[in-house]
Amino acid sequence: MIFLPPKFYAVAAVFLFICSHTTCNLGARTPNVVIIFADDMGYGDMSSNGHPTIRTPHLDRIAYEGQKWSNFYSAASVCTPSRAGLLTGRYPIRNGMCSAVHQVLFPESTGGLPNSEITIADLLSSAGYSTAMVGKWHLGHLPEFLPTKHGFDEWFGIPYSNDMDLDRPTVTTLNGGKLGLWHTGKHWDEPMSEYWRVPLMQGDQIIKRSPDQSLLTKMYTKRSVDFITNNADKPFFLYLAHSMPHVPLFRSENFVGTSTAGIYGDVIEEIDWSVGQIIQTLESLEISEHTLVVFTSDNGPWLQFRTQGGSAGLLRGGKGTTWEGGMREPAIFWWPQSIEPKIVHGIGSTLDLMATICSLANIDLPAKIEDSVDLSNTLLLGQDSPRNEMIYYRHQTIEAIRLGAYKGHFDREASDRGEIKLKAIYNIDMDPAEAFNLWERYPDIAVALRSRYLEHRRSIIPVVDQLARRK
Amino acid sequence: MIFLPPKFYAVAAVFLFICSHTTCNLGARTPNVVIIFADDMGYGDMSSNGHPTIRTPHLDRIAYEGQKWSNFYSAASVCTPSRAGLLTGRYPIRNGMCSAVHQVLFPESTGGLPNSEITIADLLSSAGYSTAMVGKWHLGHLPEFLPTKHGFDEWFGIPYSNDMDLDRPTVTTLNGGKLGLWHTGKHWDEPMSEYWRVPLMQGDQIIKRSPDQSLLTKMYTKRSVDFITNNADKPFFLYLAHSMPHVPLFRSENFVGTSTAGIYGDVIEEIDWSVGQIIQTLESLEISEHTLVVFTSDNGPWLQFRTQGGSAGLLRGGKGTTWEGGMREPAIFWWPQSIEPKIVHGIGSTLDLMATICSLANIDLPAKIEDSVDLSNTLLLGQDSPRNEMIYYRHQTIEAIRLGAYKGHFDREASDRGEIKLKAIYNIDMDPAEAFNLWERYPDIAVALRSRYLEHRRSIIPVVDQLARRK
Repeated sequence: MIFLPPKFYAVAAVFLFICSHTTCNLGARTPNVVIIFADDMGYGDMSSNGHPTIRTPHLDRIAYEGQKWSNFYSAASVCTPSRAGLLTGRYPIRNGMCSAVHQVLFPESTGGLPNSEITIADLLSSAGYSTAMVGKWHLGHLPEFLPTKHGFDEWFGIPYSNDMDLDRPTVTTLNGGKLGLWHTGKHWDEPMSEYWRVPLMQGDQIIKRSPDQSLLTKMYTKRSVDFITNNADKPFFLYLAHSMPHVPLFRSENFVGTSTAGIYGDVIEEIDWSVGQIIQTLESLEISEHTLVVFTSDNGPWLQFRTQGGSAGLLRGGKGTTWEGGMREPAIFWWPQSIEPKIVHGIGSTLDLMATICSLANIDLPAKIEDSVDLSNTLLLGQDSPRNEMIYYRHQTIEAIRLGAYKGHFDREASDRGEIKLKAIYNIDMDPAEAFNLWERYPDIAVALRSRYLEHRRSIIPVVDQLARRK
Repeated sequence: MIFLPPKFYAVAAVFLFICSHTTCNLGARTPNVVIIFADDMGYGDMSSNGHPTIRTPHLDRIAYEGQKWSNFYSAASVCTPSRAGLLTGRYPIRNGMCSAVHQVLFPESTGGLPNSEITIADLLSSAGYSTAMVGKWHLGHLPEFLPTKHGFDEWFGIPYSNDMDLDRPTVTTLNGGKLGLWHTGKHWDEPMSEYWRVPLMQGDQIIKRSPDQSLLTKMYTKRSVDFITNNADKPFFLYLAHSMPHVPLFRSENFVGTSTAGIYGDVIEEIDWSVGQIIQTLESLEISEHTLVVFTSDNGPWLQFRTQGGSAGLLRGGKGTTWEGGMREPAIFWWPQSIEPKIVHGIGSTLDLMATICSLANIDLPAKIEDSVDLSNTLLLGQDSPRNEMIYYRHQTIEAIRLGAYKGHFDREASDRGEIKLKAIYNIDMDPAEAFNLWERYPDIAVALRSRYLEHRRSIIPVVDQLARRK
């Protein structure tokens, strides 16, 4: 007799329950997976996280019916490394997707996610899933790095951020930055898609340069709905990575002025509409009870864009920082009849989607995926999250480590000299805004943080810096 | 034939609907009213407003089933004037309940809410309601000012704040303040009830000095449940004003350490439990469909108390300020079958409870209650809120005015000299954190704000400063 771990029985019981309550004919059918990933949306940008003027009824609904995670982290505070972490379940330092020199990949970059890396799509594809990516990739735009080389049967979207390939001279804006062509002196000026020559692609073909960005969310949604509809009778994986609400902000005609929170609010409301379309499609096809839907964001709000950036709510900082506002994200897991409705305060990360999905799909997790924690017992059984830590990188430097309730911030310059210098400890369960540095009170925590820092660094094997590769 | 306003038919239709769906035998029975009022709880202190570690499942539930208002204001940013505003529907400047010299009433005060004032309890009592107050009063502790002189059939609670009647020398605390005896050098020291000689009262009798404050929330809840149970077959009004989470923080044994957010989290979780007890009582008595439940707080979080103060979420400032964090409150309206479930972004205020309750109870609103706006069409029909402004007083000075999306802050010193000097304008729908002063862009708004300031001030008739009266 083989002894299986208790989780096996738990998961099996859930599948039996599903099969006995639905029209499922496939025995222990593994769930479909839909990951919806917003770009630069902040922790505070949904109504169910307290935003007072942005309406997000669809997100609120799935948050209430499913699990809302309030301590859920992206793998990095900027785009490229965050996305690499989500798809591979590995801190980007391990695969060259965070850099000493650049924050993200740019149109002139020649690097990308190495083909030696295993993605969620690779594993699900091998397990017989239909796989599609819709939306922003940003893990390398040369042919050898595209989504179709990383386990996706199909891809429709843009290869990097929607503010790249800028075709006009930059100007200094109200925001004081040079990115903001869409703020050219008039207030809340509308951006024009033709300012950016970002390509819209399908597979490895460019369909159009300077596509009408106001249609991106709508087009992505239609593609996603079509993919789900066409695959309703077999297992599928959809990775829908919205280009919005990354600046420049665009929304379709239907959402112009729907929000009193301004264009940023309009854009979030269109993403919320899109979530509603996905949910409605799953329900009308009667496959919602076979489908895990995950909603989260790649990093915190881009606060420099003022009212065109989002809100991290009560959290400190935003995109590009290792304050909580930079990496703690809105996060919802929805799977009717399977997920225990709950607000989860335990720690989770986009890094964990890999191990969790493998567990739900009965796929062995490859050994090299060392940073991904299986959260399925929390999702299905309401158990405490097994993740107890988070490591916050900026570029290639560890700026902070969270162990349980405690988060230590390290001095960046000291780290770059090879020293470990702790400069703050916050109890972020009691003080989520990181306002009260209590480092002198916790000598034991300080020891544990240093020790974890060293242990983690010892596990890192140097690799090629993919973001430093240029033409 | 008499033509009645459309609302009459709408409200009548709702009552008919209720009566046809329940065991209601009283024809157009007016609803019971339960107002639950927290003390110093912040906008961000419930999970459904984004708090990441405080669990508030009962508040989240009624927020989701009822209306959560995200632009709902207390009448002032400190205790006494806020409570006067709630009960009378009038800005406290009109009845002497805000002062040039003191923020609130103290044990040595001899003033209180004048008996010429009309309270919600007075009107509901005259209309045949049983009326009870449970909890903190703070509108005058001399016999002539007590709740039983202001329309309440009964009262059980404390006459002012739980940090008053301090019986020990104050010490400088970790917080740097002198109020914080409960922080006496050891970290997160537990406070002791006997440090404060605050009286626990019933009617006009003192039952006990220095009551065990850890039992306050529990005792208030039991009294409230008993009152509801004893009045289940007739109309009733319950005003439950918790003493918590005002510092010093206390919670019963059942809630020690329930929250990872520390003692403040424990305290909020006990208040949430208390809300659950009220809801459960209404449901088990089958009167929830005859009962309007309102939950809100008297002012923003007391930020000076650091991790023992709450969170205003994404809002700026806290208690004692006219930033949004000082006066914008968590606010929920719940009345199954009658209230349209919705998140309401329109403006509302505790000042409006008077006119709204009068409307629902078919009571004519007395003419002098000029600051109270009837919100019943928003509650029952989902219409836009008819309130379009808010005036933010601190002491007797107008520090800010909100007109629609725009909030102007006035220079306090200039106001005290009789000048009107606008120093900032924020679009708080787009910028709820009041981060981006756009005053130079809105000359028309500036004119409107000054004009509203003058018009409002002209409506103020000088009265006795009740908070300045001392032995």
